Amino acid sequence: MSILVVGSVGLDDVQTPFGRRKGALGGSSTFFSTAASLYGQVRLVGVVGTDFPQEYTDFLANRGIDLRGLQVAEGKTFRWAARYDYDLNVAQTLDTQLNVFAQFHPQLPEDYRSSEYVFLANIDPELQIEVLEQVQSPRLTALDTMNYWIDFKKDALTKAMSMVDVVLINEAEARQYAQTFSLIRAARKLLDLGPKALVVKRGEYGAVLYVNGGNLCRSCFFAPAYPLEKIEDPTGAGDSFAAGFMGSLANSGDHGPEGLRRAVVHGSVVASFAVQGFSVDRLSTLTMKEIEGRYEDFKRFVSF
Amino acid sequence: MSILVVGSVGLDDVQTPFGRRKGALGGSSTFFSTAASLYGQVRLVGVVGTDFPQEYTDFLANRGIDLRGLQVAEGKTFRWAARYDYDLNVAQTLDTQLNVFAQFHPQLPEDYRSSEYVFLANIDPELQIEVLEQVQSPRLTALDTMNYWIDFKKDALTKAMSMVDVVLINEAEARQYAQTFSLIRAARKLLDLGPKALVVKRGEYGAVLYVNGGNLCRSCFFAPAYPLEKIEDPTGAGDSFAAGFMGSLANSGDHGPEGLRRAVVHGSVVASFAVQGFSVDRLSTLTMKEIEGRYEDFKRFVSF
Repeated sequence: MSILVVGSVGLDDVQTPFGRRKGALGGSSTFFSTAASLYGQVRLVGVVGTDFPQEYTDFLANRGIDLRGLQVAEGKTFRWAARYDYDLNVAQTLDTQLNVFAQFHPQLPEDYRSSEYVFLANIDPELQIEVLEQVQSPRLTALDTMNYWIDFKKDALTKAMSMVDVVLINEAEARQYAQTFSLIRAARKLLDLGPKALVVKRGEYGAVLYVNGGNLCRSCFFAPAYPLEKIEDPTGAGDSFAAGFMGSLANSGDHGPEGLRRAVVHGSVVASFAVQGFSVDRLSTLTMKEIEGRYEDFKRFVSF
Repeated sequence: MSILVVGSVGLDDVQTPFGRRKGALGGSSTFFSTAASLYGQVRLVGVVGTDFPQEYTDFLANRGIDLRGLQVAEGKTFRWAARYDYDLNVAQTLDTQLNVFAQFHPQLPEDYRSSEYVFLANIDPELQIEVLEQVQSPRLTALDTMNYWIDFKKDALTKAMSMVDVVLINEAEARQYAQTFSLIRAARKLLDLGPKALVVKRGEYGAVLYVNGGNLCRSCFFAPAYPLEKIEDPTGAGDSFAAGFMGSLANSGDHGPEGLRRAVVHGSVVASFAVQGFSVDRLSTLTMKEIEGRYEDFKRFVSF
């Protein structure tokens, strides 16, 4: 069982009410692969500059992540600076430097093409499409995106969404894409593009799963967010969610409604750990046993 | 089994993206009693002016609501005007005329004093305390409030909250009262006042139940909001929630954690119907069978 991820690998300068970190290991595919490597073999596709610290490469390699798809390009690594205030749902981006990421085109090593699970983290949808065109009959594909691509590359994003099995998206982005305040109408519009399932992420309010076909309202699934007294750093929550989600699907092989529900809970669990530390700090010590513990907590949170 | 409610009875001018209504039957105890009368005997305490339409009094009386506690005072009935935009979570109050409500002091008819369940809808906490001082050993008391009382009558509100068994409050108000963004810390602060349980209402994100004692995070209960494609008019959602909540507790007699969880789901169900019509339109045709149908839907929404 192999999970391919394409996305950013970068250096983050992050400030929250609980501390700050400069040049921390960041990027969507970093968070994803660090967490997903608990579930199975992860293959990473991305690019870093020649300034990327060896210790970060070692960290990823030591988790058994296949880095043959990680290009090293002349120049500087992608860099992102952000600040969170007490409302930790909203990142204020202070600076984004694409650097080597600006010229990036994903190139899959030959044996990556047969990856069974493919996750397209939040990058230019044109690059997401390039990856989808390189893989051969994966068992399940999913993508994440962000408001920037809805604003500036909506056609490419629409095409990418129509090519994958699962779309993961934030609530505000779902509404933005569909140009409606009604979340159910937004969900219907997104599912009409073709994916089998849609996961709407709602930050501290959890996530909703919509499955194509039938009555969208009555078949939907709600998972709360794991209640935490303190969120250290929300960066990477969405990518970590995706890791638990994809990892669970890959492990169970059940892509039906029940398997998708369990995957959403796994996503919520993994995201809850990710935000309890800066960068990948908490993910780096996370164990499957801890994941299973919170998975059981979720059952109690909703049982009546 | 008897449920006493004290709160406003008024005339609402409401405008939403789906229509408008002038002089509609409104007020917190109206919504509460209309819905709670499906669960048992409701006794209403409030005041109206001499302009209050007889058809509205008849409507309430025909639902079997005991109106001996509804004073009729010389003058005009309480009046509220509001507009909702597409984000139906937020009412923009256009006008509030207290009228006869300004001089109101609740006076409980003698046999109201032995009511077993007491709900103090959103009114001046000093009046809530007056009611609590008139009732004799009720089985369960609960109150709702709003930001206005947190701003201007915090001491009285604090006292009222310390006197009841259950506090129902909106998420933003919980944070405002506790002066913290962390919902768990806010919950702890509110429960430290003395109530056995706290229900935090989150609008379209559902509700959370916290029960005093033990680990607040791990013992909490999350209910989503019932997914609706169209919300006609959100007015009265919180009062209808309280009606389902109190009605369920009164019917089951189980005030423990499991009974409280089922009560939260009943609250969510009743609120979901209330918002599907203007004023009490949808509540007036609601049946227990419909409530039970959505109650079962909620089980599916969260099962994994």
